[in-house]
Amino acid sequence: MSTDETTAGHIQELRRGTVVLACLVRLRQPDYGYALLESLNALGILVDANTLYPLLRRLEKQGLLESEWNTEEARPRKFYRTSPTGDSLAAALTADWHRIDDALARLTGDER
Amino acid sequence: MSTDETTAGHIQELRRGTVVLACLVRLRQPDYGYALLESLNALGILVDANTLYPLLRRLEKQGLLESEWNTEEARPRKFYRTSPTGDSLAAALTADWHRIDDALARLTGDER
Repeated sequence: MSTDETTAGHIQELRRGTVVLACLVRLRQPDYGYALLESLNALGILVDANTLYPLLRRLEKQGLLESEWNTEEARPRKFYRTSPTGDSLAAALTADWHRIDDALARLTGDER
Repeated sequence: MSTDETTAGHIQELRRGTVVLACLVRLRQPDYGYALLESLNALGILVDANTLYPLLRRLEKQGLLESEWNTEEARPRKFYRTSPTGDSLAAALTADWHRIDDALARLTGDER
């Protein structure tokens, strides 16, 4: 594996868990997949549709998201919202994130 | 999968990428595997020996860590240090971490 591939792999791994957290937090306000994608990317949470859409279906299957079809428009669209279980997980992940962030800040001497 | 397993899986996923970053930052000061394990756990970066030791070997194979045997003691011990390539990756991951942290803070309205 080249250095570039190694770097990309580790960056990918760092980001993976955070996308779940970002979705659960963001979908406390119900929204369509595409609108979610746009808003996460605008915030700097980089994820593409091929990753996000299967993830949303997986989170729904796990009971962390709920969905509903909006059939009022010409083309029906599915919108998602964070379930109560998903909300609890978001709180747990946020707490964990802060704990890790504090630990990393102490390790790096908070270079930020 | 139960809710507890789902939660544990997502927490595990969130932590996985951060352990690599923590190792690379911490091993800018060379140390033994066991001392690293102790200091990460003391900081709240929860990782066990069965995860950490194979990870250290993998990071060495990827050229991100360098190692040396200390044979001065009765039982030879291997100590690791972050390589220049590993140092660059640590900087890239730290920058990414801060970017994600800022994005999550904006999403949650910084509930911290």
